Amino acid sequence: MLGLMQDQPLLISTLIEFSQRHHGESEVVSRRVEGDIHRSNYKQISARSKQVANALDVMGLQFSDRVATLAWNGYRHLELYFGVSGSGRVLHTLNPRLHPDQIVWIANHAEDQVLCFDMSFLPIVQAVHSRCTTIKHFVALCDASRLPADSGIPGLQSYEAWIGAQPQTYSWPSFDENSASSMCYTSGTTGNPKAALYSHRSTLLHALAGALPDSLNMSARDSVLPVVPMFHVNAWGLPYSAAMTGCKLVFPGPAMDGKSIYELIESESVSFAAGVPTVWQMLLSHMQTGGLHFSSLKRTVIGGSACPPAMITAFNDLYGVEVLHAWGMTEMSPLGTVCTLKNKHMDLDADEMMKVRLKQGRGLYGVDMKIIDDNGAELPWDGKAYGDLLVKGPWVIKEYFKGEGASPLVDGWFPTGDVATIDADGYMQITDRSKDVIKSGGEWISSIDVENIAMAHPGVAMAACIGMKHPKWDERPVVVVVKRPDSELTREGLLSFYEGKTAKWQIPDDVIFVDAIPLGGTGKMQKAKLREILSDYRLPVA
Amino acid sequence: MLGLMQDQPLLISTLIEFSQRHHGESEVVSRRVEGDIHRSNYKQISARSKQVANALDVMGLQFSDRVATLAWNGYRHLELYFGVSGSGRVLHTLNPRLHPDQIVWIANHAEDQVLCFDMSFLPIVQAVHSRCTTIKHFVALCDASRLPADSGIPGLQSYEAWIGAQPQTYSWPSFDENSASSMCYTSGTTGNPKAALYSHRSTLLHALAGALPDSLNMSARDSVLPVVPMFHVNAWGLPYSAAMTGCKLVFPGPAMDGKSIYELIESESVSFAAGVPTVWQMLLSHMQTGGLHFSSLKRTVIGGSACPPAMITAFNDLYGVEVLHAWGMTEMSPLGTVCTLKNKHMDLDADEMMKVRLKQGRGLYGVDMKIIDDNGAELPWDGKAYGDLLVKGPWVIKEYFKGEGASPLVDGWFPTGDVATIDADGYMQITDRSKDVIKSGGEWISSIDVENIAMAHPGVAMAACIGMKHPKWDERPVVVVVKRPDSELTREGLLSFYEGKTAKWQIPDDVIFVDAIPLGGTGKMQKAKLREILSDYRLPVA
Repeated sequence: MLGLMQDQPLLISTLIEFSQRHHGESEVVSRRVEGDIHRSNYKQISARSKQVANALDVMGLQFSDRVATLAWNGYRHLELYFGVSGSGRVLHTLNPRLHPDQIVWIANHAEDQVLCFDMSFLPIVQAVHSRCTTIKHFVALCDASRLPADSGIPGLQSYEAWIGAQPQTYSWPSFDENSASSMCYTSGTTGNPKAALYSHRSTLLHALAGALPDSLNMSARDSVLPVVPMFHVNAWGLPYSAAMTGCKLVFPGPAMDGKSIYELIESESVSFAAGVPTVWQMLLSHMQTGGLHFSSLKRTVIGGSACPPAMITAFNDLYGVEVLHAWGMTEMSPLGTVCTLKNKHMDLDADEMMKVRLKQGRGLYGVDMKIIDDNGAELPWDGKAYGDLLVKGPWVIKEYFKGEGASPLVDGWFPTGDVATIDADGYMQITDRSKDVIKSGGEWISSIDVENIAMAHPGVAMAACIGMKHPKWDERPVVVVVKRPDSELTREGLLSFYEGKTAKWQIPDDVIFVDAIPLGGTGKMQKAKLREILSDYRLPVA
Repeated sequence: MLGLMQDQPLLISTLIEFSQRHHGESEVVSRRVEGDIHRSNYKQISARSKQVANALDVMGLQFSDRVATLAWNGYRHLELYFGVSGSGRVLHTLNPRLHPDQIVWIANHAEDQVLCFDMSFLPIVQAVHSRCTTIKHFVALCDASRLPADSGIPGLQSYEAWIGAQPQTYSWPSFDENSASSMCYTSGTTGNPKAALYSHRSTLLHALAGALPDSLNMSARDSVLPVVPMFHVNAWGLPYSAAMTGCKLVFPGPAMDGKSIYELIESESVSFAAGVPTVWQMLLSHMQTGGLHFSSLKRTVIGGSACPPAMITAFNDLYGVEVLHAWGMTEMSPLGTVCTLKNKHMDLDADEMMKVRLKQGRGLYGVDMKIIDDNGAELPWDGKAYGDLLVKGPWVIKEYFKGEGASPLVDGWFPTGDVATIDADGYMQITDRSKDVIKSGGEWISSIDVENIAMAHPGVAMAACIGMKHPKWDERPVVVVVKRPDSELTREGLLSFYEGKTAKWQIPDDVIFVDAIPLGGTGKMQKAKLREILSDYRLPVA
């Protein structure tokens, strides 16, 4: 027997309809590529997303056709989020930090029909357009006056002219909530890039779970700054959760340096900001150098890479900002865990609370996880046993677009590629990426642990630990370090800093100072590239 | 094209599975009918709900068969919530405050097969069992030793013996998330009672939306006391949101007097409590008499009836407890609006914030609403125009069980029977129940406004305003008042109290002092009954 409740599919269009109706005046503020600050609200975003939908209809785009973006975080990108998916097409957010050849490969694989891009990326589009064989329409996210006279891109039009000709009314179609809504390719450390193909249902459930008090805790009282790019797993779903809650949205555009982010936080009274550690590191450096403080920022969520404990304590102790440690993946929409406390922790003192907060966190409702040993047997949740981390849930992929990489699931669970522990309270802690774990004399050394100690040294700006082949121990850790500008840190100084902080055999064998550590398209350290660069390196003989 | 995300139906069993796995040690504390305090946790609730599922299998109950309860808020009731619905049966919470004849009618209409009841309700069951023609099994929620030797109820068994014989493992079945999960009959002011038939999907979406920061704001850090009965619209969905967040749960059992509730709040460090105004009035009286304070309570949600402003300010000003005004209906699962502030209100002073808080609140994501005039035309959201309030959303009914009362929807919208205004920010304010509005000389007078002024008088314990026939004005308001024990309030005293607080023509024509105002099964004032009692009353001649 079925229940007798109203049938209403979980569609992305319901988000923008809700926010324009119930939070129409709530602001959407963007620092633009043009350099200025632009002010909009949900009512205007809704009206313009309907213009996008009409414009796509006029272009003859069919249900599920892909519309690609190469864009920063801003209001026009947000309008595309709702206009493209809301009208039944699939939003494909391309990562502009990828190599042009990769962009070509991905756009062709996705069979993108339209490409909307910020003017910052005009040179990329000029370099790739002739090889993107499926793209029929190129749209520059600017007004007609800013369009170059001769871009060399056939039929290039401005976004404002494109949508400006269209009516601001549109009847959002209703369809199966399992329909594809958006897609995002993973950086792909091995093989070709592979895409997660999200559905309206998975996006809406993720947006609900992501806004819960135990997740990102988003409400209509917040002013939210997504520094995490909208081209990276839909900015962790923040645009959707934002429209669902009607919070104020603040977009940084291309300016993600410490000074620009700080100014935006202060001028727009941002209460909540989300980003990857490398961005926060730049912000903290700017704050420390200038002796600055926050007047409105209450909490940040840090994810995308393991967050150095030193950063969590800096935000907390120096600036009174709560840091939520979060963990997830492109294949998980991306939220899997967020580190928030439980009722049982309420009486702990600050130090003990901090110990809990340093873990990656608890699973959100909807995400289940387990750790397994090499034989696939589930390991206990005791905070000690570590093994391969697997997840499942309604916003976790079951396979990649076009079946690339075959079926990734193991008995219905998605293997994350992370190695982790889970404690009795369900708090998960990443020990390492399985491919980054250093196997030394039959024991495992966590590259993250080695990095975290280095990062706690005041003279270190960035640190990466990788394993180097060793004739006796199989592998031994070395730490690759970028010094702070004014630091006179030496190899011996850093190695002695490890003493007493970790087991002797886990102290790296060497320190390699470099000017920069290669970062990937999403700001993560590229250890594979680092290993390549250091392929001629030999460990010191003891 | 469909997305490629994992298929996982939204089932109630996933809630208890999640909480036992991720919040197994989180406490579930109950004051029992037996009088003592019982301590359990989600791990135990899960194990015992699986015993319930096994016991229902042994009884031969089929998918969608109804299992009824006549029970207070407690751990056994919670186990039935998950065991009955989780295994695919429909939980039917009977309201023990109804007349036995109504209970018989409802149980037969629902075709209940099993009835589980608290020993407090043994006399009711003894009075009705022979007339409940579909019930095959009677289960008393106690252990075998408390079962009376001769209850007169055929085959009566104790819950503990019933489930004790069953294994604590059970493989929750997977099925269509639109399947019926539970049902609740409305008090039914006209005609026979009618049932809302909830689905797993509607229940889960409601639980997600209900836990959001803009709704009840529930997290794993909370200790939650649902005073609102589990037999009344599933205690506003709190048991489901609780299992979803892993918060501590505290159940009051039958003891809902001010003293018992206060003691429970203090001893279990309750941070959040939910109930109807009449219960909070008893609690406030107890606090004021004893000069007491709260040490842990941070917020309450008050719904079920319009909450007198005096109560909101008392909680806020005297005890530092935030009061969330909420509004909903049995037909809405029940949450429709909760009154939380927006970003734009953050700079208001306390008085201005309070003005916003006195409204019934903003629609949650998922619920849309509109007000219409007598011709069905939508009225503006200006905070002034008032009309019939209609709602829609995935946790609003489309029809009643067995099609009773024909199709209630008007163009897909459910008419709530309330008259309301909605302001430009989406805040809804109930003006009155359509049937309670007093039509005086072509103008409408809100009975709620008249009551709220009376309730603000220190000598008034309870007030109900009803319309009386008038030869010239059609209807005129009178206010029926229960005085506080020590009050010497007079008719003239109260009438003069109205002066300057409302328009002269909205001041009631008379005050009628009574010992008690009749309350319905869910604690609401029964104005229909009051009109009946006062049928011989005549308005004073001016």
